Amino acid sequence: MVTSGGDAPGMNAAIRAIVRLAIPRGFRVLGFMRGYEGLITNLVKPLDLRSVSGIIHLGGTILYTVRSPEFREMQGLKRAAENLEKNEVDGLIVIGGEGSFRGALELNKMCDIPIIGIPATIDNDVFGADETIGFDTAVNTALRAIDNIRDTAVSHERIFLVEVMGRTRGFLALSVGLNAGAEIILVPEVEVNLDEICDRLEEGRKRGKKSSIIVAAEGVGNTREITEKISSRTGYDARLSVLGYIQRGGNPTARSRLLASLFGAKAVELLQKGQGNEIVGLQGGKIVSEDLERSCKSIKPLDTGLLQLAQELAV
Amino acid sequence: MVTSGGDAPGMNAAIRAIVRLAIPRGFRVLGFMRGYEGLITNLVKPLDLRSVSGIIHLGGTILYTVRSPEFREMQGLKRAAENLEKNEVDGLIVIGGEGSFRGALELNKMCDIPIIGIPATIDNDVFGADETIGFDTAVNTALRAIDNIRDTAVSHERIFLVEVMGRTRGFLALSVGLNAGAEIILVPEVEVNLDEICDRLEEGRKRGKKSSIIVAAEGVGNTREITEKISSRTGYDARLSVLGYIQRGGNPTARSRLLASLFGAKAVELLQKGQGNEIVGLQGGKIVSEDLERSCKSIKPLDTGLLQLAQELAV
Amino acid sequence: MVTSGGDAPGMNAAIRAIVRLAIPRGFRVLGFMRGYEGLITNLVKPLDLRSVSGIIHLGGTILYTVRSPEFREMQGLKRAAENLEKNEVDGLIVIGGEGSFRGALELNKMCDIPIIGIPATIDNDVFGADETIGFDTAVNTALRAIDNIRDTAVSHERIFLVEVMGRTRGFLALSVGLNAGAEIILVPEVEVNLDEICDRLEEGRKRGKKSSIIVAAEGVGNTREITEKISSRTGYDARLSVLGYIQRGGNPTARSRLLASLFGAKAVELLQKGQGNEIVGLQGGKIVSEDLERSCKSIKPLDTGLLQLAQELAV
Amino acid sequence: MVTSGGDAPGMNAAIRAIVRLAIPRGFRVLGFMRGYEGLITNLVKPLDLRSVSGIIHLGGTILYTVRSPEFREMQGLKRAAENLEKNEVDGLIVIGGEGSFRGALELNKMCDIPIIGIPATIDNDVFGADETIGFDTAVNTALRAIDNIRDTAVSHERIFLVEVMGRTRGFLALSVGLNAGAEIILVPEVEVNLDEICDRLEEGRKRGKKSSIIVAAEGVGNTREITEKISSRTGYDARLSVLGYIQRGGNPTARSRLLASLFGAKAVELLQKGQGNEIVGLQGGKIVSEDLERSCKSIKPLDTGLLQLAQELAV
Repeated sequence: MVTSGGDAPGMNAAIRAIVRLAIPRGFRVLGFMRGYEGLITNLVKPLDLRSVSGIIHLGGTILYTVRSPEFREMQGLKRAAENLEKNEVDGLIVIGGEGSFRGALELNKMCDIPIIGIPATIDNDVFGADETIGFDTAVNTALRAIDNIRDTAVSHERIFLVEVMGRTRGFLALSVGLNAGAEIILVPEVEVNLDEICDRLEEGRKRGKKSSIIVAAEGVGNTREITEKISSRTGYDARLSVLGYIQRGGNPTARSRLLASLFGAKAVELLQKGQGNEIVGLQGGKIVSEDLERSCKSIKPLDTGLLQLAQELAV
Repeated sequence: MVTSGGDAPGMNAAIRAIVRLAIPRGFRVLGFMRGYEGLITNLVKPLDLRSVSGIIHLGGTILYTVRSPEFREMQGLKRAAENLEKNEVDGLIVIGGEGSFRGALELNKMCDIPIIGIPATIDNDVFGADETIGFDTAVNTALRAIDNIRDTAVSHERIFLVEVMGRTRGFLALSVGLNAGAEIILVPEVEVNLDEICDRLEEGRKRGKKSSIIVAAEGVGNTREITEKISSRTGYDARLSVLGYIQRGGNPTARSRLLASLFGAKAVELLQKGQGNEIVGLQGGKIVSEDLERSCKSIKPLDTGLLQLAQELAV
Repeated sequence: MVTSGGDAPGMNAAIRAIVRLAIPRGFRVLGFMRGYEGLITNLVKPLDLRSVSGIIHLGGTILYTVRSPEFREMQGLKRAAENLEKNEVDGLIVIGGEGSFRGALELNKMCDIPIIGIPATIDNDVFGADETIGFDTAVNTALRAIDNIRDTAVSHERIFLVEVMGRTRGFLALSVGLNAGAEIILVPEVEVNLDEICDRLEEGRKRGKKSSIIVAAEGVGNTREITEKISSRTGYDARLSVLGYIQRGGNPTARSRLLASLFGAKAVELLQKGQGNEIVGLQGGKIVSEDLERSCKSIKPLDTGLLQLAQELAV
Repeated sequence: MVTSGGDAPGMNAAIRAIVRLAIPRGFRVLGFMRGYEGLITNLVKPLDLRSVSGIIHLGGTILYTVRSPEFREMQGLKRAAENLEKNEVDGLIVIGGEGSFRGALELNKMCDIPIIGIPATIDNDVFGADETIGFDTAVNTALRAIDNIRDTAVSHERIFLVEVMGRTRGFLALSVGLNAGAEIILVPEVEVNLDEICDRLEEGRKRGKKSSIIVAAEGVGNTREITEKISSRTGYDARLSVLGYIQRGGNPTARSRLLASLFGAKAVELLQKGQGNEIVGLQGGKIVSEDLERSCKSIKPLDTGLLQLAQELAV
């Protein structure tokens, strides 16, 4: 098993589930440390039942995760494949996001070992998984931050543009914005229309609104510039707040822990059946599996109906 | 619209969604205050778009909710029906739990007005709704409380039995227990077997466990007695902690707010179509409607697979 | 060093401070495990600079703490004294509350080793310390719980009696009640006057109050009975909520961590000077020391002016 | 009464205390809205006992606060003085920070009305007040954010530079850094020495540290540049996280509420005695008053001993 890519709250709960379910089913469990780098350098430690005690509620990952540029090169992949063989690994579980799964797909070409992906990323952008481990936690962390910011927005009668994570996708921004009651939500999937934003703010002002929250994914463009333009065009006192890394950590919520346990259980089940090259997913409320390559090559759609709903609700 | 039964975090978000979606669709929206009592006494106030500003993140209900014994009698139901007519109500949305829906069913026999139920209860026991508004919040509140208690359990090497809400059903206990990594989960659906509990604790002790958390629904019996019996049989220092009302309040989580907005939207849609005598639900990840009478007369099953999983994970 | 008595958030921060300050000053630091029991059974481990990494924010105590009935007997004290000598201990720091300090006083009679007490208890009842480690955390935990309960109190128009910890002293109840805006605060230092309580609730009702919070220390009597009597006398729907063990755990607040660091620093300073039989304290905003025996034999007064203020503020 | 300058958690608790204590002592209480602007435009509303119900736990200020450039000009001050007379104001309480008090001092030259300042600012930089309303809340909010960030720092073996508020003073950075166990704390009062920072990080690495937290006040310079320089010089993966406005909002902690109640009580007492041109303060654990002009013209010293302690503790 390996955790890879950005850390997400609930990764530890997934590690715990895999260890606790795999060992009684006859597996020996190894944890490669520091993401794919540990595969390349053979930094590995055996995990027993007690080694995952007291971690279900901790953010981050006890297996660590660092970026591994080497893993993108043939040389690195080869060494990883060799180390998997050397350690007599029959199946590899990769806990991570889209980028990690693409790496897994490459690795798969180098060796015959079945690989199962467990979607764990606050970006929620894995095709085949309606929700990823860590997403619910990040949404709630951002919501609580906005609850704080709203105090100041209201007291000072200001506009706040709150930038949440999401370089290419707007899942986090959409969910945070809808549930925070944000007046405007900006996602990378929809081009920013400053005129429309300013018009909506003006209309709100006419209806009596004195403060507003705009939630924007980081990928929508230069949020500082957008904030300044809103200020100068509307005359509102608009401020920018970038939530940043606080969204990545913290104790996982119940839902992130639940997905971690269910995804972990499914991954062990798949390996037991000898299946590989799949990711574990959630579809229509059910835990399912999805072809690894298909997941990597497909784009999970954003629910634009929710965007529409958010706009209607925040009149 | 009326909120009824025990309050649940997210009720206000549902009220907001109904008001914000119904008014632009041509409805006039009235809020009956203090639950069904307000129907009987005609305590009612009109709700406009601004009246639901700044409430999406608040626990409780701005419409209040009190127990109404009169509503269980023919006399009370009659007066409620008269008041609905007097106010020219074309459709009633009841935000509450199972008991409230049974009341709605009775009221329905007295008048022809379509009634839509929105499931909002931390008990999560409404047939037709895989999840109710408020449940996710209550689970997370209880989880955080158990995180605190675990500090003391570990430091003092104690067993803690944590009683969560749930007089007849174990949804909350199951979800809290699974996600807290509780060693043992007691639900009203399964008879308490003290011998088995003590055996499991003894086995844990042999494997090196020095502290354990037991999560029990209040409906499993006298939790104080159970705790004392565990103490005397195992020799462990076992303590009881009753979480109580802290589980009912607090700012709703993202998921409780999301369900509230989606359920509210669906309820307005149903009324717009002239449908009634249904509850809004969630099935297989989709927002659906379910027959009101069928929901009242059916029992939502507890996922015993999760109970099994929780036990396997907490070795 | 030893942690003793009930655990309090910030104990770990104190352990960290002692280790990190004592070692560079030439001390060797030992941690006796499981409270005074570890002194008796010689359960001890050396602590180095890295052993206290990553613990400043954790509740509970990494040294564990269990009740030790043996320590109250001559035999136990003797063995503890022997073990201190065997380990060549030049000074003992006891992190705990009043009971632990009384134990330390007894131990002191058996051996010449200087003992320094660090007040760490959520009860805040140590004479010589205006505030103890853990108190601020417990107050804030209880406050957040009451914020949740108030949602239900307001929505249901109920009275809630919230029982907080404090068998003999009302520091926690007073601070929680004052800062929660509780209408009535009951402390063990003042006899409960049911007539007066009911009168105040009635007056509040006349002024338009529909819900109220009463905060009571556990030591004021049978809180269930008091709640029932209030219900029956006033006609209000009064409920009891016992906060229990959630008050003892959780991540320490900034203030509890600060006191832990300052108290730890003072304790090391005192031992360095060869002083003993003192506790570290806080008086008039300054870190001071106080005679151990005097602290044990004196009673820290409750600020009744604050009780009066709380009552005036909650009209 | 007026709230002025940046909002601080606990301002509402102070407003409540003033209203609840002043009215029974025979005062009539007026709230000027939107800071000093309300004084100039005579935007004022009477406050009665019930108008401050249910606000003790809310961040922000129900009286609003906006920047008022006019108040810095003679014209604005004149109109403010006229409005005070027109409303027959006998005494003005200004709840705010240093800048607001300087404004009060100017206003005082225009009229004879006694003015009392209540220090409420998360910057904690008011001379005469060891602690200001809101400071403890901001510290705890930042601490929780850093707890989240540390998850990612540890999992990714990174350095995080966390920027907290404080343009000219380092009180917040110092308190946050000390209590977060930050390896390095940067405050505006001490010049940033990049060589020393890098040396300390290198030493930490040699002792086995793989991740570190640096807490910096915004006033220490361009934190993005500092972060990049640290990255390039040490080879560490260093990231910047700017906490921003989340530090200004949120429910006030127990301590911020307590100070608010005590400061409010003292302010009413001073006005009752006919005293003015003072601020309420906290010195040596006691609530005191301090001359307004002296407070404005003096600089509250930063406790450099704490900086030293923080450095020793974070080896």
